[in-house]
Amino acid sequence: MRRVRRAATIDDVAREAGVSRQTVSNVLNAPGVVREATKARVRLAIDRLGYAPHASARRLRTQRSSTIGVHLDPFAGGISGVVLDRFVHALTERASDRGLRVLVYSARGPQEEIARLRDLREGGEIDAAVITGTFSGDPRIGWLDAHGVPFVSFGRPWGNEPSDGPPHLWVDVDGASGTRAATEHALVTAGADVAFLGWPAGSATGDDRERGWREAMVAAGAAEGARLFAEDDVQAARLVALRAFAAGAPDAIVCASDTLAVGAHLAAVSAGLAELPIIGFDNTPVAEALGLASVEQRPEEVAAGVLELLMGDSGRVIAPRAVASDAPGAPSRSHVLVTPRLVVR
Amino acid sequence: MRRVRRAATIDDVAREAGVSRQTVSNVLNAPGVVREATKARVRLAIDRLGYAPHASARRLRTQRSSTIGVHLDPFAGGISGVVLDRFVHALTERASDRGLRVLVYSARGPQEEIARLRDLREGGEIDAAVITGTFSGDPRIGWLDAHGVPFVSFGRPWGNEPSDGPPHLWVDVDGASGTRAATEHALVTAGADVAFLGWPAGSATGDDRERGWREAMVAAGAAEGARLFAEDDVQAARLVALRAFAAGAPDAIVCASDTLAVGAHLAAVSAGLAELPIIGFDNTPVAEALGLASVEQRPEEVAAGVLELLMGDSGRVIAPRAVASDAPGAPSRSHVLVTPRLVVR
Repeated sequence: MRRVRRAATIDDVAREAGVSRQTVSNVLNAPGVVREATKARVRLAIDRLGYAPHASARRLRTQRSSTIGVHLDPFAGGISGVVLDRFVHALTERASDRGLRVLVYSARGPQEEIARLRDLREGGEIDAAVITGTFSGDPRIGWLDAHGVPFVSFGRPWGNEPSDGPPHLWVDVDGASGTRAATEHALVTAGADVAFLGWPAGSATGDDRERGWREAMVAAGAAEGARLFAEDDVQAARLVALRAFAAGAPDAIVCASDTLAVGAHLAAVSAGLAELPIIGFDNTPVAEALGLASVEQRPEEVAAGVLELLMGDSGRVIAPRAVASDAPGAPSRSHVLVTPRLVVR
Repeated sequence: MRRVRRAATIDDVAREAGVSRQTVSNVLNAPGVVREATKARVRLAIDRLGYAPHASARRLRTQRSSTIGVHLDPFAGGISGVVLDRFVHALTERASDRGLRVLVYSARGPQEEIARLRDLREGGEIDAAVITGTFSGDPRIGWLDAHGVPFVSFGRPWGNEPSDGPPHLWVDVDGASGTRAATEHALVTAGADVAFLGWPAGSATGDDRERGWREAMVAAGAAEGARLFAEDDVQAARLVALRAFAAGAPDAIVCASDTLAVGAHLAAVSAGLAELPIIGFDNTPVAEALGLASVEQRPEEVAAGVLELLMGDSGRVIAPRAVASDAPGAPSRSHVLVTPRLVVR
């Protein structure tokens, strides 16, 4: 047995057990992928060396409080706020089932959020964080990286990926796939003239949702339909749709959000087009109440993806896309892309 | 300097600083209301005596983790789910501002919730709990009482008040006051024939909301309007309203929920009564999107009330009702009844 005077590291354990560092990590984080005999050898080495995974590894289960910190925005109202809330519900439920805790915190901006994260981290109250609403140059990501706080982002980094080092962990919903499915449905059931109502260009999420519509139109050989743009506001969307109807109504409208869809629906009703097929995005209670079809983000699958990335479990997320991983042979993915689901009404 | 052999108490600090016990409490819990010089004196006394607010009382500030556990239901969808979510957002925001933590947990029923609470309590992870959705004979309340876990209920105990011992702490929204305001508004702006659309009798919350409508009708000397009942479901409400319209439309309808209001609205639109005034309850995004008036529960005030009861701060809740308190001279009330607000559209 190798004597280690300083605190044992994961490398010490690997040498002691005669396995790679990655295998030790797998035993700690994804034991399901390691053979029993190997697992037993690594665990024996861990016990012998008194290795405390706290000190080194970056994954949740190897640390102290088993608590995940989740930012909860001040309630802003609006139709689609429910999506993030559903995600928090689902994360809480799944985390509770696994004996993990979810601690929610509030902050009015990125700097305040960093201050909260610092408090929680220094107090040993959280082992990992889930952040939402990342943006280009997001200072939270730099802080989390610099302080070695494991985190998963709900939402792609859209250009914030580190140029060196391991990729960030993220889970996102494949918006283009959602609008593609919505457009294909409209082409089959309504007609070839499917318009798109989105947000003004420059929103990565919005551009992605527009792309899905465009790709479906091109694939079907349909003439390119009208592209309409409005801020994410019912009245703004209503006015844009009304103006469009004055020049002739399309066969259907695929929208980047339920808010836009409600605006288009109100315009359609007042223009005598109450039966015009309008498909929203987010499948909120509003869409359900108005009987509008909508693309469902499946926040439960997003929550499962977050826990998978944090805990190394797998097989729960439907149709994810596996990309680069943080070490050769590592069992877990570094991100999960959830395929949304069209709810037809 | 006074020598204190046993652990210092808040009274020791008050004597040492020459201020009242309440002032010490304010320095700890609402420092913004205390003058700087006084604050400095109290803090000096705290340091001298080695006072650890953690050690003594049963209030939140005196305990260990400064964390409040809040049950988060599995997401059930629906129009009004947003009210509880808004409450959790508001509680998180206010708690964060005071240096408190909010830990959310999930459970599928009261027994599972008790198991979660036991884990969290025994692990020292929470000092207090907020429970929602209490019902007659609720086993959670017995467990919390028996184990001395401080808790506040969002929602009245409706008959679960202890016959001896201190009353439970609760915060609720005065539903009758909300429907009374809605009915008075309808009587003034629409006409004397105001119908009520509620849930089948036997729900304490629903009966309370119906009472507000009835009282306003009686007070105005209006002939009693129609009472309609449907389960809390858009389609059920739509059918009930359609049947009622066949016998003649009222001047307005006051509803026990936005779900019922949406159903009534859809019935009105299809019956050519799109302008019929319909007032909902909960002021959800759906009511806003459809332009329906609605009674707003003010979840932010509910959250402030919960923290007031837990921390002994006061003066934040509008129109509360003060009742018996749990100890002679104790500064706080044992419950807070928030007056809702009619949002006219």
